[in-house]
Amino acid sequence: MTNSGKPALGVGMIGYAFMGRAHSQAWRNARSYFDVPAVPRLAAVAGRNEAAARDTADRFGWESVETDWRRLLERDDIDIIDICTPGDTHAEIAVAALEAGKHVLCEKPLANSVEEAERMVQAAQAAAALGVRSMVGFTYRRVPAISYARRLVEEGRLGRIVHVRGAYLQDWLVDPESPLTWRLQKERAGSGALGDIGAHIIDLAQFVTGEQLTGVSALTETFVRERPVSDPSLVGTSGISGTSAGNGSATRGAVTVDDAAVLVSRMSGGALATFEATRFATGRKNSIRLEINGTRGSLAFDFEDMNVLNVHDATVDARDAGFTRVLVTEATHPYVAGWWPPGHVLGYEHAFTHQAVDLVTAIAEGTDPRPSFSDGFQVQRILSAVETSAEREGSWTPIGGARVPSPSLS
Amino acid sequence: MTNSGKPALGVGMIGYAFMGRAHSQAWRNARSYFDVPAVPRLAAVAGRNEAAARDTADRFGWESVETDWRRLLERDDIDIIDICTPGDTHAEIAVAALEAGKHVLCEKPLANSVEEAERMVQAAQAAAALGVRSMVGFTYRRVPAISYARRLVEEGRLGRIVHVRGAYLQDWLVDPESPLTWRLQKERAGSGALGDIGAHIIDLAQFVTGEQLTGVSALTETFVRERPVSDPSLVGTSGISGTSAGNGSATRGAVTVDDAAVLVSRMSGGALATFEATRFATGRKNSIRLEINGTRGSLAFDFEDMNVLNVHDATVDARDAGFTRVLVTEATHPYVAGWWPPGHVLGYEHAFTHQAVDLVTAIAEGTDPRPSFSDGFQVQRILSAVETSAEREGSWTPIGGARVPSPSLS
Amino acid sequence: MTNSGKPALGVGMIGYAFMGRAHSQAWRNARSYFDVPAVPRLAAVAGRNEAAARDTADRFGWESVETDWRRLLERDDIDIIDICTPGDTHAEIAVAALEAGKHVLCEKPLANSVEEAERMVQAAQAAAALGVRSMVGFTYRRVPAISYARRLVEEGRLGRIVHVRGAYLQDWLVDPESPLTWRLQKERAGSGALGDIGAHIIDLAQFVTGEQLTGVSALTETFVRERPVSDPSLVGTSGISGTSAGNGSATRGAVTVDDAAVLVSRMSGGALATFEATRFATGRKNSIRLEINGTRGSLAFDFEDMNVLNVHDATVDARDAGFTRVLVTEATHPYVAGWWPPGHVLGYEHAFTHQAVDLVTAIAEGTDPRPSFSDGFQVQRILSAVETSAEREGSWTPIGGARVPSPSLS
Amino acid sequence: MTNSGKPALGVGMIGYAFMGRAHSQAWRNARSYFDVPAVPRLAAVAGRNEAAARDTADRFGWESVETDWRRLLERDDIDIIDICTPGDTHAEIAVAALEAGKHVLCEKPLANSVEEAERMVQAAQAAAALGVRSMVGFTYRRVPAISYARRLVEEGRLGRIVHVRGAYLQDWLVDPESPLTWRLQKERAGSGALGDIGAHIIDLAQFVTGEQLTGVSALTETFVRERPVSDPSLVGTSGISGTSAGNGSATRGAVTVDDAAVLVSRMSGGALATFEATRFATGRKNSIRLEINGTRGSLAFDFEDMNVLNVHDATVDARDAGFTRVLVTEATHPYVAGWWPPGHVLGYEHAFTHQAVDLVTAIAEGTDPRPSFSDGFQVQRILSAVETSAEREGSWTPIGGARVPSPSLS
Repeated sequence: MTNSGKPALGVGMIGYAFMGRAHSQAWRNARSYFDVPAVPRLAAVAGRNEAAARDTADRFGWESVETDWRRLLERDDIDIIDICTPGDTHAEIAVAALEAGKHVLCEKPLANSVEEAERMVQAAQAAAALGVRSMVGFTYRRVPAISYARRLVEEGRLGRIVHVRGAYLQDWLVDPESPLTWRLQKERAGSGALGDIGAHIIDLAQFVTGEQLTGVSALTETFVRERPVSDPSLVGTSGISGTSAGNGSATRGAVTVDDAAVLVSRMSGGALATFEATRFATGRKNSIRLEINGTRGSLAFDFEDMNVLNVHDATVDARDAGFTRVLVTEATHPYVAGWWPPGHVLGYEHAFTHQAVDLVTAIAEGTDPRPSFSDGFQVQRILSAVETSAEREGSWTPIGGARVPSPSLS
Repeated sequence: MTNSGKPALGVGMIGYAFMGRAHSQAWRNARSYFDVPAVPRLAAVAGRNEAAARDTADRFGWESVETDWRRLLERDDIDIIDICTPGDTHAEIAVAALEAGKHVLCEKPLANSVEEAERMVQAAQAAAALGVRSMVGFTYRRVPAISYARRLVEEGRLGRIVHVRGAYLQDWLVDPESPLTWRLQKERAGSGALGDIGAHIIDLAQFVTGEQLTGVSALTETFVRERPVSDPSLVGTSGISGTSAGNGSATRGAVTVDDAAVLVSRMSGGALATFEATRFATGRKNSIRLEINGTRGSLAFDFEDMNVLNVHDATVDARDAGFTRVLVTEATHPYVAGWWPPGHVLGYEHAFTHQAVDLVTAIAEGTDPRPSFSDGFQVQRILSAVETSAEREGSWTPIGGARVPSPSLS
Repeated sequence: MTNSGKPALGVGMIGYAFMGRAHSQAWRNARSYFDVPAVPRLAAVAGRNEAAARDTADRFGWESVETDWRRLLERDDIDIIDICTPGDTHAEIAVAALEAGKHVLCEKPLANSVEEAERMVQAAQAAAALGVRSMVGFTYRRVPAISYARRLVEEGRLGRIVHVRGAYLQDWLVDPESPLTWRLQKERAGSGALGDIGAHIIDLAQFVTGEQLTGVSALTETFVRERPVSDPSLVGTSGISGTSAGNGSATRGAVTVDDAAVLVSRMSGGALATFEATRFATGRKNSIRLEINGTRGSLAFDFEDMNVLNVHDATVDARDAGFTRVLVTEATHPYVAGWWPPGHVLGYEHAFTHQAVDLVTAIAEGTDPRPSFSDGFQVQRILSAVETSAEREGSWTPIGGARVPSPSLS
Repeated sequence: MTNSGKPALGVGMIGYAFMGRAHSQAWRNARSYFDVPAVPRLAAVAGRNEAAARDTADRFGWESVETDWRRLLERDDIDIIDICTPGDTHAEIAVAALEAGKHVLCEKPLANSVEEAERMVQAAQAAAALGVRSMVGFTYRRVPAISYARRLVEEGRLGRIVHVRGAYLQDWLVDPESPLTWRLQKERAGSGALGDIGAHIIDLAQFVTGEQLTGVSALTETFVRERPVSDPSLVGTSGISGTSAGNGSATRGAVTVDDAAVLVSRMSGGALATFEATRFATGRKNSIRLEINGTRGSLAFDFEDMNVLNVHDATVDARDAGFTRVLVTEATHPYVAGWWPPGHVLGYEHAFTHQAVDLVTAIAEGTDPRPSFSDGFQVQRILSAVETSAEREGSWTPIGGARVPSPSLS
């Protein structure tokens, strides 16, 4: 089967930075490597900086450029709105797009607050009734090793899950002279390591186990509480203290988000869990770690070796048991058949193509894709509970709506 | 220098099971591989089961056997009492031995309660004033990779510590048909995974960082709450429910300790920490993991690869930086010069020899060895805080006497 | 800087299978992720099967399709001929293209024989005098970890090289029922594992060390000498024995190439080397291993973990030395700045983009790119020497034109 | 069962250096950790340096000291002669001991020449007829992971073996100022890396596969051909050039053995093999690597992680297959039940205890232990063939007496 002669789906992407580059490649690759039922068309990229948007269009083949994202909602040739902007803009854009009848792919975290996220869920549910689809960009779910891990759990290969160990470790803020950016300001970013990377590892843990966190005891910390302000225009705005130090050193502004968060939890199936998100784990660049222990087997994953899933099968005789290093590059692994022969490893951006393929497939087939806005909302409630618990020195904070655990195996 | 012509120190060991075998080897090896200032003499092994004690004596060369440990305290040819019995007997034996003027090596955990531990500390301090030494058996401190890790921290190679990640993972209780033993009964064992293995990883974290836990938010769980009773004599005793199931299955008794514990903490230097101790981490046999991130570098250790310490130096240019897999088998690594050439790896029991060497050296040189009973007491207080926090659903529980953290780096 | 307003270079690609898919992506990605001085235009894809070629064009955005590759040579809008066909067609196409004034990128191995390769070198040299560029597709040179390894050697970080250990291990032929294909017939493929994958590891060893193999002692083996013929049209052609077995089993044909080759060598700088290429290393999928030991340091690489280079620095104090696991994803690593932040790993096909970028850069800047046809020719001579040595039971076979080694360090 | 009341076997050990320390521990440990049918008695240690021998006796509990090894042969209380001296003395001692009716354990390599080895085999066979046992110290066979590997091959888990990859990598000679010692002189040591460590890896490959090398194509090299002479008494003796350099530098002597050897081979079952032995692999301390690929599975081992065997099972569905990291510390693994619980790893010297246990068991049970002197002799013939091949620039040199390979699988 080829992709020619199939219906097209016009994509309008908002934002063109890091995520814009990853998404552009994905929309382009979907038809190149997969037999999709509908073919994404790179219709328009929108951004306030027209030159930058045009450069992105030029590099990736977007057909047109808009400087006002609202224009995308008015265009008939655009079917999908792809939101790659900071979190404080998600709710407004997504709700408007859904109300305009556009399918929406929204980068994570879904929103900067539970309230915004809840509004987005309502808009998504109303739109779904009319056949309009929505999806949140927890892209790591579609790393083949992670999708494969999910399948193993679904097949019962781990038995009942008793332990979850999740961590997302980076180190780009260790240097106290690293400058203050919007990511370190609560108004723009919502939270720090917690929402930016903690959201991913929490989503992954829930996705792979098929269970939910039921509550948390959490601590957070901001190790460097003031940083140099490289952009003078920020001074005077909320949170920028503007202390111009005497001895020639730069103006400094307050960091108003967490640098790191740690928490313990109970999963809805009774497992104990630990999670950690930090930008201060010196030497760890993008270490997304997930370990799951069940009564029949275990899993271990680290994104720094993303093509590998370590799997332990406890039903094997102890003499021959151990963690098997599965190189997740076989044609029978999720998504891999579209790419290369065994052993020809995939990279970071491939999961974005899988996300694009799954979304256009869901649209073409009339099904609701996952992770849904509800999934994103549930993560948002966890992030909120983490902040609440941290404010109360780690006291147990239940997640609203989560199921009650039933821990005993006997 | 040779070991001949040196003073001897008579050792009386109480207990002959797993720990007894490890300690016997250590007392024997100390003189074989190290130039100790005083030579341990395997004077007597004591145990209620005389045949078993005699077999141990026969295998390892103990000169005599006693069936009542009190006899050891009366013998003039015994200088050191080595306590390898379950935790509920430690306090009585150790206090009596110290009062009898015997140096004491006591297996961990120091005691089953904070109160007992405190009594032992008082006895140790009183004895120390008279030149009588005491030490608690947190043996893993003397694995060369761990001792080397401590040195790196002391040298400032990690800078200020911001993260600690500790875990002690085993899996021998995953099978729900694994029988009830004294280790699963609160009266004998004090606690479960927490005191048995959690104590080790907490001690290691404090030892390597040189900092203390200041408080905890903890959760514990008993996944299998009833287990078959293989020893009928246990039925009717406290905690043994004695439900003889109808369909031919065995009598079952209640497990009264934790199977697993997870916690978050703040170190006295401001670092965030997570700890986990479990006997349910399927596929992990004796995985003692310690990761430390500092502002200048990081460490990572796993006992399942015990001869290796992974070290990251953040002062190296990013192009050439990464975790260096140091094979800790060089003559310049702690304790290694006594053994084999580089690359000829050591095993589990070698650390016990290092412990014996350090204790007899301290006795000979008149210094107080570490870890002291006070160190053991401080760990006991942490274990107690963990239990308190877990009873209160993870609420923050400070560790009495710990220093207050000062987290900000800026 | 953006890529708009730059000159375009029309690419005509011949072949559309595995390599065609990798090259298509590369031509497209070059402008997307890199600031290239000239922008590749996907002008035409050529192939005998028009439907297949059209599908490739549709998937990757090739502007036109040709069913006769000679048409590409006549088109003025085509500047680069990209040869992705089997080895027995390389010489004819490449020579014709160069004579037509087209720059040429030719997949490896350069040719199926030393004679063909020599003709191609002559054509390349004649063309170079006229400013026409040529390059052979030893793409793995441009995996960032490999390029970084080369830089370390150039910087003298390894000192004098004393050992090279190269292996390319696959396992897709272990099953004796795996069918006979053109890759297993000498007429089409030239050789088996030797030319297909052995060529890569030999090229990498020479590239990273900057030295040449001076001779070889080699053994080769065909473990499965007859395989089922799935394509009946092959029966009767050279090498297809056409034994139709009685009991319903398939017709079988002779495998006329090697399944595996092993060899020892001396490098021009005096190092001892071992190489291995096999399709029978059960469990190894695409394990390209290169280890180099020098007097000042060492390197170790395995493509199954392609974003990592393990580097040992022997000038570091032994206490702190070891192999450093460098995650080659920093902006200061070769090629990486074009892609993602640290820790966001790359995959198999990224090196093809680097190859495309370097070729268009060389064309734009008027320099001769490497690896040149001469480099490919030199590898071809080594492959030929391996075959000669293997026919003579491993007797030492010098490589024509290689420098004489000077092994002693003292 | 206990060890008391069992017959004793008096051991007389000759040599007290590195090997003497390892063997002393083994004789002592055998009864401590294993239920041996006869109990080794540390009767006497012999050495020319009486003080050194006495120190060894004092450290390990040897009952007496002799300065002439011949005295051991005359003593009735000595049943086993344990030869831990350099290779040039093995033949004389072993033959005399066997003729005196003593069981013999002889360190490897069996001898420094094929002729000596042959004489030893004859003596061993004559003695065996009288119930006198002999064994050569290829101790690494008894590392549990290696013994387990052998069992897997015996069980057919690897199918037919097609590839063997062996290497023994050390780096202690990289420094050209490292002094000349007896190990670098052909008269004493026989050969260099080849006989010292190459012998081990060749023996391991043959032991685990149950096959023999049939011939070799080999290259050897001496990278540093002169080294400083620290011991002036060596000057003037054979091979010591005595060039006293002018500018204050030390006298230098010629290195007359190989620093490294590489070879390719065919196993008797048809597999292709590569081997390497070197003291110049910078950063590798005692890296004994063995990889075996068979039609049904594969093995990979590295002594630097000696408690692990990586095992691939090709009969598992490709989706779930990979190398399983078996931690060889279960009670069902060879030798492990004598030691510690799972995950409590063993070290270098434990294999010597296993060797002692197996020898005393064979003596008590009246069976011939392996590796026999014949096994050692066969390795000696391979070493000799390697030297012959290297002298003839890698030409194929058959191993006398080896079976002919039958390579085809089809």
